Amino acid sequence: MARIVQKYGGTSVGDVERIKKVAERIKATRDEGHELVVVVSARSGVTNELIARAKAVCEFPSERELDMLLATGEQETIALTAMALHGIGVDAVSYTGAQAGIFTDKVHTKAKIKTINAKPIEQDLKTGKVVIVAGFQGINDDGQITTLGRGGSDLTAIALAAAVKADKCEIYTDVDGVYTADPRVVKNARKLEEISYDEMLELASLGSKVMQTRSVEFAKKYNVVFEVRSSFNHNPGTIVKEEVAYMEKVVVRGVAVDKDQAKVIVSNVRDKPGSAAKVFRALADANVNVDMIVQNTGRQGLANLTFTVPQTEAARAVRALDPVLAAVGGGQVTVHEHVAKLSVVGVGMRTHSGVAATLFQALADAGINIDLISTSEIKISIVLDLDRADEAARVAHAVFNLDKA
Amino acid sequence: MARIVQKYGGTSVGDVERIKKVAERIKATRDEGHELVVVVSARSGVTNELIARAKAVCEFPSERELDMLLATGEQETIALTAMALHGIGVDAVSYTGAQAGIFTDKVHTKAKIKTINAKPIEQDLKTGKVVIVAGFQGINDDGQITTLGRGGSDLTAIALAAAVKADKCEIYTDVDGVYTADPRVVKNARKLEEISYDEMLELASLGSKVMQTRSVEFAKKYNVVFEVRSSFNHNPGTIVKEEVAYMEKVVVRGVAVDKDQAKVIVSNVRDKPGSAAKVFRALADANVNVDMIVQNTGRQGLANLTFTVPQTEAARAVRALDPVLAAVGGGQVTVHEHVAKLSVVGVGMRTHSGVAATLFQALADAGINIDLISTSEIKISIVLDLDRADEAARVAHAVFNLDKA
Repeated sequence: MARIVQKYGGTSVGDVERIKKVAERIKATRDEGHELVVVVSARSGVTNELIARAKAVCEFPSERELDMLLATGEQETIALTAMALHGIGVDAVSYTGAQAGIFTDKVHTKAKIKTINAKPIEQDLKTGKVVIVAGFQGINDDGQITTLGRGGSDLTAIALAAAVKADKCEIYTDVDGVYTADPRVVKNARKLEEISYDEMLELASLGSKVMQTRSVEFAKKYNVVFEVRSSFNHNPGTIVKEEVAYMEKVVVRGVAVDKDQAKVIVSNVRDKPGSAAKVFRALADANVNVDMIVQNTGRQGLANLTFTVPQTEAARAVRALDPVLAAVGGGQVTVHEHVAKLSVVGVGMRTHSGVAATLFQALADAGINIDLISTSEIKISIVLDLDRADEAARVAHAVFNLDKA
Repeated sequence: MARIVQKYGGTSVGDVERIKKVAERIKATRDEGHELVVVVSARSGVTNELIARAKAVCEFPSERELDMLLATGEQETIALTAMALHGIGVDAVSYTGAQAGIFTDKVHTKAKIKTINAKPIEQDLKTGKVVIVAGFQGINDDGQITTLGRGGSDLTAIALAAAVKADKCEIYTDVDGVYTADPRVVKNARKLEEISYDEMLELASLGSKVMQTRSVEFAKKYNVVFEVRSSFNHNPGTIVKEEVAYMEKVVVRGVAVDKDQAKVIVSNVRDKPGSAAKVFRALADANVNVDMIVQNTGRQGLANLTFTVPQTEAARAVRALDPVLAAVGGGQVTVHEHVAKLSVVGVGMRTHSGVAATLFQALADAGINIDLISTSEIKISIVLDLDRADEAARVAHAVFNLDKA
């Protein structure tokens, strides 16, 4: 008998038929004799409907009231899931975030979990009940309902797995697991059996979109082993865990492409201390998420600052830079939206040299031009022309033999 | 400056446009300098949608989970109402039933309010906030969400009015107030300016459908004066209050017709002690709501027991009686569904005689046959043929001059 936390996302519980299917899965696990805590999201589409109604009554809804509103989405799902389990003879009980003792800070719409009082859940588990918990929500010390922001239900599941000392945490989603590359782009992409937290973190932040980084960070911090798998089939998924020695034998674990990128060039910046600081302070104050940063010194003590931002934030970046341009030399700002970022990730890079050289040579052989380069201990990222991004992914996938286990 | 509790029902907050209209009404009251607590129901239709989903996943949903599910309906409305108020510059804050300190017993789906801890609401009122409370819901001592059953939001409003010592409680609904008769049947029916709790109770239980009896009972017990009025216009409504001397000058306050009645006759019951008890015990055990009861002694020590039940419960009544018929004499059970009940109500009856005689004579003059008669201190009810019910209402309305103030 193991103690298992399962999490089902919005598409997995999208309507009453899917909820009944999820109940069958839960029952199958329960019938194997395991203790079960199940975290569910709002039915897919519900959160957007609620937000649309909020915007219809008020242009800028208060975050406290948004949390009050959005928390109803998961509350509906937990009740329906518990009922569906009752309908097939499984003893189950639903918990709101507050009832599950998920205490957060007071930052509405993106609260952080502070502590979890898992005693009530432990008691229900002992009596054989399946415990269904609303994902994405908690309560603060003032008794106010809070929500955890994007990917909040994954976070609920992983935090609960740590709190109840679960043997296993299963994140059910609409993909089979984590792949060596996007299978729609790279035909022979392969599902990974295992991946380290650090690799998952780099892939999560690089547009592979399986999970938000902070859930993975939380899992890493509390050493929660979890599995990403599909609720639409019974294939084994990808297990995400602490790095172990054999993982380093694999130099590159996967290739990710992010097409939601814009490249911003601030030209003719005075090449003296404080210029770059002024630029990035202005961007930070405007809540622009800057990713890769490259600086080239040009002629006559003038430099070009180049960086990437999400496409949706490019216009805001330009506006934010306008007031500081004069102070840094009066250069121009240009935006290139027709770019993509390609990254190769693997903890093996720490101990293997020549990975960058191999990648660059392969791309050169294919006639693909590299625009920007940025590297970290376990990742090499390049910016290139959007039209060549998919081809570059296939080249990188092939040169590192990612189709072979 | 007064302290006012307002309650808006499901049709009043049926969609985002109506919620915005309700917000305008609340703002108008707030702008007059009053302190305001507002109770809102789920948007009309939402509760039925949720119940349909519950039935789709489980034939007999658990009442605990039904409460968890249904409570989301009002929670959505309070958030949207608070947002709509923010949108027009009114400081407002939403409260779930639990946050409003509405403690109930543990009977899910029809909980009774035990106590209200109004301290948090009082504090927000003092800072000038409009407090928006979810109707229909509370929390029990175990921290479980409960709901109050049909008419629960009215009950929330009246109980809160008592708890915060409100000067006024306004129940906004889709009718203008309480009328002397159904205006669709009696053309010159008149809206009442005032009515006593007892009269309202008799009318509420007699199919005038404005409010559930237990909300009126609660108001009577705690002496909460409330006004029933429409949220779709600005007409004054009907004030419901403790009986005062001048009310007794009016002999009959109103006429109510209930067409959802069935007459059940148990014939040839042995006329000896215990027979009637056996019959009505069997009906009570089957949760049949028996209304009027009449017994006639027949020939040879056999009696006929006649009573009325809601039409939807007639079949259940017949089934319930089957096992006890032999024990009470082996009589037959017959059901007449083509009947209606007409009642005239007025606290003035207590001190005026001859009301029944006047009514019966007027009906006789119109050739309307009376089937059963039952009277209380402030009410005379008769059962008659369904086809003559509307005509009888007009006759009664006229003979007691109800069209005149």
